[in-house]
This record gives sequence, C-alpha cells and structure tokens, in this order.
Amino acid sequence: MTSGERGPQTGRTFDPWYSSYAERTAGLAASEVRALFAVASRPEVVSLAGGMPYVKALPEELIDSAFRAMMREHGSEALQYGGGQGIPEVREQILQIMALEGIVDASPDDIVTTTGSQHALDLVAKLFLDPGDVVLAESPSYVGAIGTFRSYQAQIVHVDLDDDGLIPEALEQSIARLRAEGKTLKFLYTIPNFNNPAAVTMSLERRARVLEICKREHILILEDNPYGLLYFGEPAPPAIRSLDAEHVIYLGSFSKILSPGLRVGWALAPHAIREKLILAVESSILSPSTFNQWVVTEYLRQSDWQQQIAGFRAVYKERRDAMDQALREHLPQLSWTSPDGGFFTWLRLTPELDSKEMLPRAVTELVAYTPGTAFYADGRGQQEIRLSFCYPTPDRIRLGVRRLANVINGELELLETFGTAARSRGEDRVTMPPPDIS
Amino acid sequence: MTSGERGPQTGRTFDPWYSSYAERTAGLAASEVRALFAVASRPEVVSLAGGMPYVKALPEELIDSAFRAMMREHGSEALQYGGGQGIPEVREQILQIMALEGIVDASPDDIVTTTGSQHALDLVAKLFLDPGDVVLAESPSYVGAIGTFRSYQAQIVHVDLDDDGLIPEALEQSIARLRAEGKTLKFLYTIPNFNNPAAVTMSLERRARVLEICKREHILILEDNPYGLLYFGEPAPPAIRSLDAEHVIYLGSFSKILSPGLRVGWALAPHAIREKLILAVESSILSPSTFNQWVVTEYLRQSDWQQQIAGFRAVYKERRDAMDQALREHLPQLSWTSPDGGFFTWLRLTPELDSKEMLPRAVTELVAYTPGTAFYADGRGQQEIRLSFCYPTPDRIRLGVRRLANVINGELELLETFGTAARSRGEDRVTMPPPDIS
Repeated sequence: MTSGERGPQTGRTFDPWYSSYAERTAGLAASEVRALFAVASRPEVVSLAGGMPYVKALPEELIDSAFRAMMREHGSEALQYGGGQGIPEVREQILQIMALEGIVDASPDDIVTTTGSQHALDLVAKLFLDPGDVVLAESPSYVGAIGTFRSYQAQIVHVDLDDDGLIPEALEQSIARLRAEGKTLKFLYTIPNFNNPAAVTMSLERRARVLEICKREHILILEDNPYGLLYFGEPAPPAIRSLDAEHVIYLGSFSKILSPGLRVGWALAPHAIREKLILAVESSILSPSTFNQWVVTEYLRQSDWQQQIAGFRAVYKERRDAMDQALREHLPQLSWTSPDGGFFTWLRLTPELDSKEMLPRAVTELVAYTPGTAFYADGRGQQEIRLSFCYPTPDRIRLGVRRLANVINGELELLETFGTAARSRGEDRVTMPPPDIS
Repeated sequence: MTSGERGPQTGRTFDPWYSSYAERTAGLAASEVRALFAVASRPEVVSLAGGMPYVKALPEELIDSAFRAMMREHGSEALQYGGGQGIPEVREQILQIMALEGIVDASPDDIVTTTGSQHALDLVAKLFLDPGDVVLAESPSYVGAIGTFRSYQAQIVHVDLDDDGLIPEALEQSIARLRAEGKTLKFLYTIPNFNNPAAVTMSLERRARVLEICKREHILILEDNPYGLLYFGEPAPPAIRSLDAEHVIYLGSFSKILSPGLRVGWALAPHAIREKLILAVESSILSPSTFNQWVVTEYLRQSDWQQQIAGFRAVYKERRDAMDQALREHLPQLSWTSPDGGFFTWLRLTPELDSKEMLPRAVTELVAYTPGTAFYADGRGQQEIRLSFCYPTPDRIRLGVRRLANVINGELELLETFGTAARSRGEDRVTMPPPDIS
C-alpha cells in the first residue's frame, strides 16, 4: 500500500495529481507505524524506538565557542554558498576521524561532505541504481537505507549474518543465485560496526573475505559506519575501506559523535565516483551548508573532541548495560544480541508473538520499540524487535523494559487463553520510518 | 560529453565502475566552464558570473543574536534530529514571508522545509519525472533546474518569453505540439519574478492566463521565487500560487533574503503532493537541519527582517543601476534586459559573436560572465550572456563591464580582420554550473 492509496486525504480519488507521479514514487511509502510513533513521542511513553543520540551529553559551551570562532574568522564564508564538495577544512579534519578507524591513505580530495550520511546514501543510490537493480544488504539492515534504495526502484536482497557479521558463504551463494537469475548486482550495503539493527560487528577476517568476494565479483561495497567510534570495550576492527581504496565507498557522519541537527556527513569514494558524487550533490542541493561545516570545523579545532567521544562512549555503555540487566531480569526467557557499541539491542521473540501486531498494545502500556519488520525488505522480522538505548536514561530504560515485559507476558497469556487463530497477519512492507527512528 | 567520458582521471578507461552507473548518471554532466570558473574566482578577476548574494550586507550581530537565542531556548532541539517536514516554528513564519507575495491562504501544514530550494527542485523532479517526461520551462531558464530535471532523464522544452514573461500563446502551442507527439507533460517550471537569467517579470494578466492554461491541460506549475522580495521599484505582481492553491507548487528560499550558507528553503504544495514531499525529504536526508531552521526562526524573531530585506533591495538596486550605466557607456551598440529586481542582467550579443567561445578570452582579460548556453537545454544562447550584479561592488561592476567591452570590441575587430570561418562551434550541452553561479 503506498501512501497515495491510503485514505481520503492522500487517496487516489482525492489526489488530482495521482496519475502524474513518477513510477518510482509508488515505492516511497510512509511507515505504517508513523501514526503510532506520533503517539509514542508523548513524554509519558518510554521510547525504545528512536535512534536519537543523547545530545545533552554534549556541553553546549563547545557549540558556543565553535560558533563564536566561526563568526570571528569565517563569518561571511559561513553565510555564503560553498563548493559542492564541501569546505576543504572539514574534509582535512575528517581524515583524522577516519584514521581512528584505520583509514590512513585517504585524501581530502576524495571526500564529499553531505547533508548527513543519509544524503550520501541517496546520492549513491541515484548514481548507481536503475529500476530492478539489486542491492545486497545484511539481514536485517538499516530501514532508512532500504527505503532510499527502494525509492530508486531497486530490489534489496538480504544476506544472512551471525554474531561475526555478514556470512561470506551466504554472500557468495546470493551472488551466484542472483547472477543465475540474470540480475544486475550494483553494490553490497553493509554496516560492519554495531549493526543497526542487528547489533553485531563484522570480524576482521570476514571483512577481508567479504572484500575479496566483492572484488572478484566486481561489486562495489557501500560501507556505512556512523557508530564505529562508539565502542564500549575494544575498538571495532579497522574499516573495510582501510583494506581497499578502489572497491569501497565509505560513509561517515557527525550525527552520532557530535550532533544530528547539523546534518553533516561524508562519503569517501574512489576517484571517479567521487567526481560524480560532487555533481550529484550540486544537482540535489547546490552545496552542503557552509555554516554547519564551519561549526563542525571550529568544534574540532576548539574542543578536545576525542575526549568528548569518550564521554559519549561512557554514556551509551551505561545504557547498554542497563538494557542488558533489565532484559535479564524481566525477559529471561528471550534471547537478544547485546552490542559492543552503538545504539541498539536486537531482541528475538518466541514464534507465537508478532512484533508489529504487538506494538499498539505496547504504546498503550507506555513503551515503544521498532518492530523487526522495518528492517527487512522481504517481510521477515515479525519475531524480532529493535530496542534502542541511546536516548532514554538508564532508569527510563529499566522502566521501559519492565513495561515491555508486561506487554509480552500479557500477550503470551492471551494467546494461551485464546490461541493464535484470531490474529490477522497482513503482508509486511518495508517503509520509511519517521526520522527519529533511524 | 558526460564527465565520465572526459579524460584520464574520470574517463571510461580509467573508471572501473563505468559500467555500473545508472542510466540517469549519463545526464549528470559537469559544467564545461567549471575549470574556467575556478580560474575566475581569483580576486583579480571581476566575476559577473556568480549568483552569490552580497551577505556582507547582513549585519553579523543579527546572526549572533539569533544563535544565542536559539542556544538559550532550544539548544538540545537544535542539535537533535527533527521531523522530515521541518520545524513548525519556521513554517509558521514562512507564512508571513509568503503573505508579502500575496499568498494569504496557506497553512504551515502544507509547507515542507528543504536544504535550500534546489533540494525542493530535486525532490519534485524525483516525485514526478519518469525518463522521457517533458518539463516546460522558460526560454531561457535557471541552469540548476535544467540540470536537475535532466538528472532524472526528463526532456526540457523551452517556451518563449518576452518583456512580460512567458507568452501564453507559445505555451499553448508547445503543449499542443508535444501532446500531438505523444509526450507526457509533467509540469511547467517558471521563475515569474526577475527571471534568472532572462531578467523579465511575468505580468499579472499573464500569470492568470498561464494558470488557466495549465489548469485546463492538467499541468502542474512549479513556481520558483527566490528573488520576489528583492524588487527595485514596485513589488512584483502577486505569486501565481496566490491565484490557485491546487495547481501550483511554490518554492521559496532564505538564500537571497538571509543567507545561502544556511541552506534553508521551502516548498508550499497541494496537500497530497506535500505528503509525498515529506517522504522524499526523509528518504534523501532524514530531516532538514534543525540547527539552521532554528537560526532562521530566531533571526526572524529577533530582528527587523523586513527592514533588512529593504536594505538588500537598496544594495542590489544600486548595483543594477551601476550595471545599466556601465553598459550604456561601454557597450551602447548592444541591447540588454535590465531587471526590476533580483540579481541578473541579460545581455544580447551581435550574431557574429559567441558567448561561450569568448569566455576564455574574457577570463584572460580578468572578467567572467555566464554564457547564455548554460540556460538552454537545446543548444541556444550563443548570442546571450548573463551578467550578475549581486556580488561585486558598483566600482567592480563598472570595471568588469569596461573589461567586457574591451573583450567584445577586440573580438569584433578580430572577426573583421579574419572573418568567422576559423571558429569551431561545438554542439552545446546544458550542464550543471558550479554552485556559485546559480
């Protein structure tokens, strides 16, 4: 069901432009749970659904002094149009950030700054995807990426992962099967670190194997790494991009290590692709905000940003631990993947439960989560739930998990009493979430 | 020639991903004059090529106090993700701005804020344009819009204009001809006020006629109005959108009345289209920068912004006058359209001259302009030049025009001596400009 077929306000009958939309627009669907999330944003609801970083952990003085330095030194530049590639200063600094992930051979010339890394996802999709082309993605994968690839009429094919991340043999099998079917494979989209939502990290050995397979098969790797520096114990293995410069587009972002309100992300791409990315940026927005790029640049100059990231790590680790402990206490019968970094825990339900169907009840009980179905392009995920621990305080996390346990246990009791027959399972459809559940 | 076919660095032979790009990517071409504009950005060159507003006319204290108010009142909101539609506060304020253009029946619910209005252009194109669809546009039209429509494989068909703007009869004829050819017409793109680059303004009578034709033919109007409030005498006639809410998507921007570095623009769209625009925003960037939207909101709250716009008007009027006077003095043999507002003068050359061919010589003589060919999708424009007076001071404008006259007169002397036979006229191709020549 597209949003254009939904109801009186946006329905076929009432939209005089219905027949004018491009074919691709049919794939641009609103989240079916959007209305529910509007309810879930009430303060009394504990939201374990969002992907919002805890920006209050960032001292506002740091932004103040970045702003003042910017206006003092670069006021009229910051207020003016800039180049499509982004300002050289921030691209230089991005090198230092990527060096922490093992990428030491990059040039600022090969970086393109974007309006958050979602923008880079969109532009890469625009550059590469013809209708019907296949994108390989982890199973499950980031809902916003799935939505964007779909908006260019691509087919998303999931590849299994386990606790060590994407399974190379599964990747090989998928490629062989799709090639046999005559499909055109454009790229592998992967979140190797603290996968959103699967919470797993790809091992170094797997990174090398996945790269080797993609090189051999001439499939580009789109490596999305917004959470890499937010590890709770050991750092994640080096980026896939650190192993190869020619087969990987690497995406980074300031959204989780500084602020998503600034919308500054970047792509590091092989030379020829980077040229096209710049043209795509210009075509879509002329130039990324110079104002925000200068705020980022001066923030990185003025502050001990590595110390600040260490502070974020401590905040999120405490919350991950609170989530773990609460799940052990209240839902010991279930299994989940607890991540070594990032924002999300991946919870598995028992087969008789349906994560999407259960959500309205959860919201009534004042707790929200993201049903697993959001993270698959093929209708799976009914028995999975993404729980985010990034935004709520540890106390709220504990409260939220206790409420969730009530919902789950209540649902199980109901099912024991009435059976599962009465439940209608609609076909799932991957849809864009509201932005705060990215 | 696409950028992918250009040379060793980006050429077919050297780009291992050449065969992986989407079909649409072939339409994403760099400006052929890009390299030249890089040279032209040297301070000794008088650039009459750019579309950069004179941001120095904005007192920086106003930005300072907007920023301070934002951090004081909305710091953590401003640093966080926001909704895909944009913050309600700025959408409310946009109503006041649009009211100055005669739009008094709009609701903030029907506004979507975007990363500059180029972003809105891109999203509207994405929502409506299938490959081969036709977009009608003024002859000439904004180079960035042409490039974006092309990036979705649309065909741009120009409709003639005169001193009163788009000619309704020409519009009717184009529609009839294209329909007879079996083409699918999606929308009319128009810049009714102080057209970029044609410098003309559509009369009120024409607005009503154009609307009537588009209504009858069920063709959407995409009304782009970045310069409307920058009039030099009388205000422009009311926006086409003020005459009809159901057939017009109206685009506005803070780039010219505040700052382009903030990248805040908006679309006001019919209800069902607006729903899809929000989804398209989310798919492309999750949410527009809350940080920048709050800066805009607090700027509008803290300052006498109407007075500030009046100040911009005075600055640009003085520059338009300087341009006019210099042209009368140094190039009296040529004709041009001097606008009643906005940023650009449209100069016509004599038939023996070629604006694109002459540009390298002009840059050697330390003056830059935009050749008319950039503003047509069909190879016209060789005898036209866009001169911008927005950024250089009146003295620099006079100097630039004097240099331009030397170039033109030198070229004419050369031609008198050697004839035109030696000149090679390559086929023109519309290409994206670097962002500062929007």
